[in-house]
Amino acid sequence: MAKYVYADNAATTKLDADAFKAMKLWLLEEYGNASQPYSFSRKPKEALKKARETIAECINALPEEIYFTSGGTESDNWAIKGVAFHNYDHKATITSAFEHHAILHACKAVERFGYPVAYMCPDRKGVITPEKLESYITDETILVSVMFANNELGTIQPIRSLCEIAHSRNAIFHTDAVQAVGHVDVDVKKLGVDMLSASAHKFNGPKGIGFLYIRKGIDLLPYVDGGAQEFGMRAGTENVAAIVGMATALRNNIKFLNSNQAHVINLEKMLLQKLDANGISYVRNGEGQTLPGIINLSFNGKDGEAILHRMDLMGISISTGSACDSKNTEISHVLQAIHMPESLAKGTIRISLGKNNTEEDVDAISIAIKRIIL
Amino acid sequence: MAKYVYADNAATTKLDADAFKAMKLWLLEEYGNASQPYSFSRKPKEALKKARETIAECINALPEEIYFTSGGTESDNWAIKGVAFHNYDHKATITSAFEHHAILHACKAVERFGYPVAYMCPDRKGVITPEKLESYITDETILVSVMFANNELGTIQPIRSLCEIAHSRNAIFHTDAVQAVGHVDVDVKKLGVDMLSASAHKFNGPKGIGFLYIRKGIDLLPYVDGGAQEFGMRAGTENVAAIVGMATALRNNIKFLNSNQAHVINLEKMLLQKLDANGISYVRNGEGQTLPGIINLSFNGKDGEAILHRMDLMGISISTGSACDSKNTEISHVLQAIHMPESLAKGTIRISLGKNNTEEDVDAISIAIKRIIL
Repeated sequence: MAKYVYADNAATTKLDADAFKAMKLWLLEEYGNASQPYSFSRKPKEALKKARETIAECINALPEEIYFTSGGTESDNWAIKGVAFHNYDHKATITSAFEHHAILHACKAVERFGYPVAYMCPDRKGVITPEKLESYITDETILVSVMFANNELGTIQPIRSLCEIAHSRNAIFHTDAVQAVGHVDVDVKKLGVDMLSASAHKFNGPKGIGFLYIRKGIDLLPYVDGGAQEFGMRAGTENVAAIVGMATALRNNIKFLNSNQAHVINLEKMLLQKLDANGISYVRNGEGQTLPGIINLSFNGKDGEAILHRMDLMGISISTGSACDSKNTEISHVLQAIHMPESLAKGTIRISLGKNNTEEDVDAISIAIKRIIL
Repeated sequence: MAKYVYADNAATTKLDADAFKAMKLWLLEEYGNASQPYSFSRKPKEALKKARETIAECINALPEEIYFTSGGTESDNWAIKGVAFHNYDHKATITSAFEHHAILHACKAVERFGYPVAYMCPDRKGVITPEKLESYITDETILVSVMFANNELGTIQPIRSLCEIAHSRNAIFHTDAVQAVGHVDVDVKKLGVDMLSASAHKFNGPKGIGFLYIRKGIDLLPYVDGGAQEFGMRAGTENVAAIVGMATALRNNIKFLNSNQAHVINLEKMLLQKLDANGISYVRNGEGQTLPGIINLSFNGKDGEAILHRMDLMGISISTGSACDSKNTEISHVLQAIHMPESLAKGTIRISLGKNNTEEDVDAISIAIKRIIL
C-alpha cells in the first residue's frame, strides 16, 4: 500500500524529532516541580527560563511577555475574557466573523455577561480591511481581536494597519496567530500588537501547550487562578516537558523558515499546475497574501465532504470546514462570512501542506482529485 | 555521592514507566487531530475513548462524566466558576479556608463579580466537620467545595457526610481530589459527589493534564470556549498522548493501590519510629485519617525553611508550606487555618513519600533530621 499522505497540517502537525528528544529528559528524569525551592527543581526552572527566552526571541518579544498556556484555545479565551471582564465600564470588543471558534465562542461568553461584541465581516477575498475596522471602531472600544491568518482560507490580515487604528482609539489589539507562528515571520514589535496567541501543535510542537504574548503594560485579568506560576498570571504546575518541546519546535521552524516556506510554496505551485494540466476546473479561495501551504479550493457543484472521504479512502487526509468542526456538513462559518455562493461553498476543500510533505505527496493528491472530480 | 532522595511526592511525582511508553506512539506516529473525520484520526479517537473509559472505571464514574482539562488547577477553576457564574441569582458558594489556592483564588475571582463565598475554618486537627458545614449552609447555597484531603496535612475530609448535607439543601458538591486520586480509594458513587478534580502528575502521570468528573445532570458553564471537544464542554485540540499517559498511570496506581499503600504506610511508620528512637521531639500534624505517605511534622522553635534547605544540601527534597508557594517564608494559609501556634508553625515541614521511595530513603531522611534538629 502507498504511503499515507497527510495534507491537513493546518489541523495539527507531526511532532519535530528534536522536540521529542528534548522532552524526554523532563518527562523521565528531571520531573521536579519547577516552582519548588530545592535543588531538584533547579534544572526544570532553568529549562523553563530558557524556553521562555527562545520563544520570546522567535517573535521578538521579551521573555517576561510570554505566558505559557494549555494551547491556542486557552490563549484566545484568556485574551478575550481577560480584557473584557477587566473593563468595568462594559466597553466593546470588536472581532471578525471568521475567527476561530475559540475567539467567537469566547466572545459569545462575554456577551452573555453583558459585555458588547461586534463582529466585522471580511470582504469576499477573506480580508478585514482597515476601512472596515475604521467603520466599526469608536472611543467605546476596549479590545480589537483579528486573526493573523484565517485557518480555512489562509488569508493574512493587515495586522499592522488594524493595530494602528485600534491604538489611535486607545483600544488593545489582540491577534490569534495560531496558524501563523512558526510558518511565516511573526514579529510582535513590527506588528505592534498588544497580545498574540499561539499553539505548539500547529508548528510541530506537542499538543496541550501554547502561549499568550502579553505586551508589558497591558492589564488584563488572569484566566486560571491559583498558584503563583507564570508571574502570578496563569496558575498550575508548569508543564516543563511540553514547554521545552514547544520551544525546540519553534526554534527549528524559525531556523529553517525561509527554506520551509520555499519548499511548501513550491509544492503548492506544483499542485495547482497539475490540476490545471489535468483540465480540472476549480476556484482558489483566499486571493492575495496567504499562508504558505494552505490551498482552499472550490469545485462548483461538488460535495466537499464526499471529496474528503474519497481522498481518505485513497490514503490522503485533507479538510473541508474548519479543523474543529469538520464532522459537520454545514457550510463553515468562514465561507459564510465571505458570502461564498452555496454551490461553491459545498464543494470546498482545504489542503494544507507542511514541511514534511513531498513532491510525491503532491502527485498523489493531484491524481486523487483528478479521479474524483473528472 | 549518595542517591538523591525525593520526598516531595505531594508536589509532583515521577512519571510511570508504562505511561511514558504508552505516550510515545501518540507523540511520534499517531499524531492526527482526534476530532477530524478521516481515518488518520481514528486511532487517536479510539485512544481517547479508551482512556476516558479507563479513568471512569478507576473512580466508578461513567465515561461521559469525565472531562479532560489541562490539570487540577483548571479543573478547580472550572468547578467553582462554572457553577457560580451559571447561577443568575447570585447564590453562595461555601468552601474551606485551607483549600488549595486553585480553589481559594478561583473563589476570590467569583467574589469580585459579586458572587458571595463563605470560607469555613477546619478544626485544630485539620478537618471540616459535618457540624461546621451545617452551621454555614443555607437554602441560598448553590455550591459546596471541600477538598478530599488537605495537601499539607494529608487529612482526609468526611466527604460523604458533607455531600449529604449539601444535597439536603439542593446544593452541588465538588471535591478537589488532586492529592487523593490514585493514592486511596476514590469512588464517586460511594462518595456521592457531583464534581471531582484530579491532576495526572500527582499520581505518576504527565504534567499538564487532568480531569474534572461532572456527574450526569449537573449543569455548569463551559470554562474554555471554542471547538466541540469534550462533549462541547471543554474546547481545544485533545492532548491524546498526555491523556493516554494519565489513564495508564492511574490504572497502574489503582491496580497496585493496596500494595502501594501498605508500602508507603510501612515507610511512614519506620520514619516515625526512627525519629522516636533518636529522641527527636516533634508534633505530628493532621491527627486521624490521613493520606498514606504525607507526614507533616512541627519542630517547636525551629525554622522549617532552614530545615528544607539543610535537607536539600544533604540530597533530600521535602516541602514546608504548600507546594505552590514554598518560596514564601510566611506561615502557610493551611497552618493559619488550623490556628497552629507560631513557634510550631514556623518549624513545620512536610515529607511526602510515594511508591518509588525505599527504606534506604527513610534512613537518609531520619539521619538528616537527627543532624539538623539535635
